[in-house]
Amino acid sequence: MAVQFIGVGVGPGDPELITLKAARLIEEADVICFITNENDQSQAKNIARYVLGTCERKAEIPIVMPMCENRSIANRLYDKAAEEIQQVIEAGKTVVFLCEGDPLFFGSFAYLLERLKNVVSCQVVPGISSVHASSAALLQPLTMLKESFCVVSGRHDESVLIAALNSHDSVVIMKAGRSRQRILSALKAANRTQDAQYLEYIGREGEVIENNISLLKEEGGPYFSLFVVTRKERDFC
Amino acid sequence: MAVQFIGVGVGPGDPELITLKAARLIEEADVICFITNENDQSQAKNIARYVLGTCERKAEIPIVMPMCENRSIANRLYDKAAEEIQQVIEAGKTVVFLCEGDPLFFGSFAYLLERLKNVVSCQVVPGISSVHASSAALLQPLTMLKESFCVVSGRHDESVLIAALNSHDSVVIMKAGRSRQRILSALKAANRTQDAQYLEYIGREGEVIENNISLLKEEGGPYFSLFVVTRKERDFC
Repeated sequence: MAVQFIGVGVGPGDPELITLKAARLIEEADVICFITNENDQSQAKNIARYVLGTCERKAEIPIVMPMCENRSIANRLYDKAAEEIQQVIEAGKTVVFLCEGDPLFFGSFAYLLERLKNVVSCQVVPGISSVHASSAALLQPLTMLKESFCVVSGRHDESVLIAALNSHDSVVIMKAGRSRQRILSALKAANRTQDAQYLEYIGREGEVIENNISLLKEEGGPYFSLFVVTRKERDFC
Repeated sequence: MAVQFIGVGVGPGDPELITLKAARLIEEADVICFITNENDQSQAKNIARYVLGTCERKAEIPIVMPMCENRSIANRLYDKAAEEIQQVIEAGKTVVFLCEGDPLFFGSFAYLLERLKNVVSCQVVPGISSVHASSAALLQPLTMLKESFCVVSGRHDESVLIAALNSHDSVVIMKAGRSRQRILSALKAANRTQDAQYLEYIGREGEVIENNISLLKEEGGPYFSLFVVTRKERDFC
């Protein structure tokens, strides 16, 4: 059975960080699908603009997702989108869903995959996640030799953040926007302020890299912000 | 100052999982550099073969790395390679170092970067790591919502592996080759055998995916093998 529903990662923002495979599958797709906001702005589609610009204009299934944390609204929208995708696929079309970063790493693609994986043939093309984009932007190894590495959401309690910082050599704290104060406090409590760097909008307009996090203002940041914590003293031998 | 030394990730094995940026920089490079074994086999160069096949034959700096765990031999080889790279760059050339997966995620590129970052202008292009390639191959979300995620080397003691399995929703255990028995034992102790899947050589010749790890033979596996552990019951709502 030919693959009919394909989630492709378009990477963290730089349109050149799309893989050759993702570019080919976007070009070959009959229909593209993506999350967009109420102002018709889609980060994933924007990142894929170079690839989309080289091919004929395609049919689209935009999923308009309001900025809110009400899961039941989101679930109804995913239900409706999954039905629409299934109908298009049953009419013989291939649907490519564009995902920022990697489709299976904190991505909304998981919700569509869960609804469609037993109904149509699915495939995932991995993408560059913000984790790897951030270490590249910092020119800083994320992990070496036997170092352990952990990713936590900044939305966790301070105790969870401190435990992660105490247990792992390298820690990436995602979704750092509104949790900045709690994260700064956890870094201080775990005595790892010196190990931390802060990034916003990696590889896209408005990129911020702060190597000295004690200079960060006491306010929130955007959703696409993260802290990268690595040991300052590492064994390179 | 133009960038002179560039580490590019070529992804986990599928030659199409190279990014557009990596492909362009490989094409533009004056010299390519890569790790190779004593039989002149380089995984990274092999993965980049499609891209390299489309351009003029380039000058090469192969770093012949014997399969041994003696760090002082490796360090002498990195010292020598860094000197050679520096000389080539001082003669006005751009050197691209090809890395399997991502350059800064358990990669040997870190050792060259450490030696050259204060001497020449450096850049890193992130690549698809085996972590993201494995969740794509399994069609399994690696992390959702507030789940935490950890990567550990299989070479750690069983107690370290058990602690990681008890503390995190999702765990990827890398370098699982010779540590298979210890990992299976840790999974059992943490009561997470049912949550685990095993992969070898993702997206390349000899790919193995085992969803039922109790079927794994009691023997070692290749270096490029890993376990992916995710919760069987997840909240998709």
